[in-house]
Amino acid sequence: MNLKVIAFDADDTLFVNEPYFQETEHKFCALMEDYLSHQGLSQELFKVEIENLDLYGYGIKGYILSMIEAAMKISDNTISIEIIEKIIEYGKELLQKPIELLDGVEETLEALSGKYKLIVATKGDLKDQQSKLHRSGLGHYFHHIEVMADKQEINYQKLLTRLEINADEFFMIGNSLKSDVLPVLGIGGYAVHIPFHTTWEHEKISHKVEHPNFKTLEKITDVLPILLK
Amino acid sequence: MNLKVIAFDADDTLFVNEPYFQETEHKFCALMEDYLSHQGLSQELFKVEIENLDLYGYGIKGYILSMIEAAMKISDNTISIEIIEKIIEYGKELLQKPIELLDGVEETLEALSGKYKLIVATKGDLKDQQSKLHRSGLGHYFHHIEVMADKQEINYQKLLTRLEINADEFFMIGNSLKSDVLPVLGIGGYAVHIPFHTTWEHEKISHKVEHPNFKTLEKITDVLPILLK
Repeated sequence: MNLKVIAFDADDTLFVNEPYFQETEHKFCALMEDYLSHQGLSQELFKVEIENLDLYGYGIKGYILSMIEAAMKISDNTISIEIIEKIIEYGKELLQKPIELLDGVEETLEALSGKYKLIVATKGDLKDQQSKLHRSGLGHYFHHIEVMADKQEINYQKLLTRLEINADEFFMIGNSLKSDVLPVLGIGGYAVHIPFHTTWEHEKISHKVEHPNFKTLEKITDVLPILLK
Repeated sequence: MNLKVIAFDADDTLFVNEPYFQETEHKFCALMEDYLSHQGLSQELFKVEIENLDLYGYGIKGYILSMIEAAMKISDNTISIEIIEKIIEYGKELLQKPIELLDGVEETLEALSGKYKLIVATKGDLKDQQSKLHRSGLGHYFHHIEVMADKQEINYQKLLTRLEINADEFFMIGNSLKSDVLPVLGIGGYAVHIPFHTTWEHEKISHKVEHPNFKTLEKITDVLPILLK
């Protein structure tokens, strides 16, 4: 391997994210439980989120707007303004959740620092992701943060152009097979998967991944023997 | 000058933006005119926008959320759900406005193309800005698009780090003295101001700018004699 850039996904790779979304969804369901079961509410919300994805992209602001829209749709516009107010309040809380670093992250970054160009490659709201990285205290390890509109092959291709490197000089570390692994392998890069205990429905894939440029690791520090040998 | 990168602001520099926001604000005021005068409504909306700026950042999704919040606040939560529905509809329309290129943009990019690294440096929603650039048909002129969380000196410094260039190799073209000109001059770069006929309240500054690295031009093609001599 002739690697130049090591890219880290942020949410649920560097720090906790999905559990916060799940907590917010739980609160949304509690607000709306006069209308449907929690499962039914989650399904309706997911449907609205996916319908809006093309227009809103990933991230919390789009999620807040989708919760509001789902609440109106599920209630056939009979929902009270106080519930809309609560949804906005929950959304603002979600934007300000504390940063909880995952185990081994700091140790891994410290060990790789200076040996490669390290970047963050994440999707979501630009403002929100930059704020989280800043609050994480990890910012100084990274050359920069790349917030991507999506994580498909085309977006990684653009990232490589921007970095002015070839695909085989690029190594991606993340918790989503769909977003962090498959597209990177697809364009000829290297990827490792570090599963997190919970995954958003939209990020799940059903098949197994096998590829010479790919490994599943149990924890983030397991990249060190690969990258420091 | 030993320039390497020419950066273009997007909104109201490459294509029309602020008039679309003003049109939406006009529709918001029409919806809410039972409560306050248009001027009073605009002021209240602006207040909510500025309060939310730190949390939401720039861009349309934050604007939609601020319109909803302003409507609730102005009406003391007596607003109807149908009005919230309308606001979301207006927001989605705003996200899908056609791209209207400003005069001379294509000619300017064509002439500079291949002679410098051209980039777009804009703030706002990542998803929205990338979508607009894509729909503009101008994408192929640019090495890449930089969507910035804000346009203060620190953000331009980070941009230079990312581009791996010095400030005196950087030339910015935009319609906002506050966002496109002052911070770039502040860090030692070059900037030109091309005024657009209307400017968002938040982008206005009251003093005159004079600096050896700065010029105000009437139209975008006026950069060509400067950059091609």
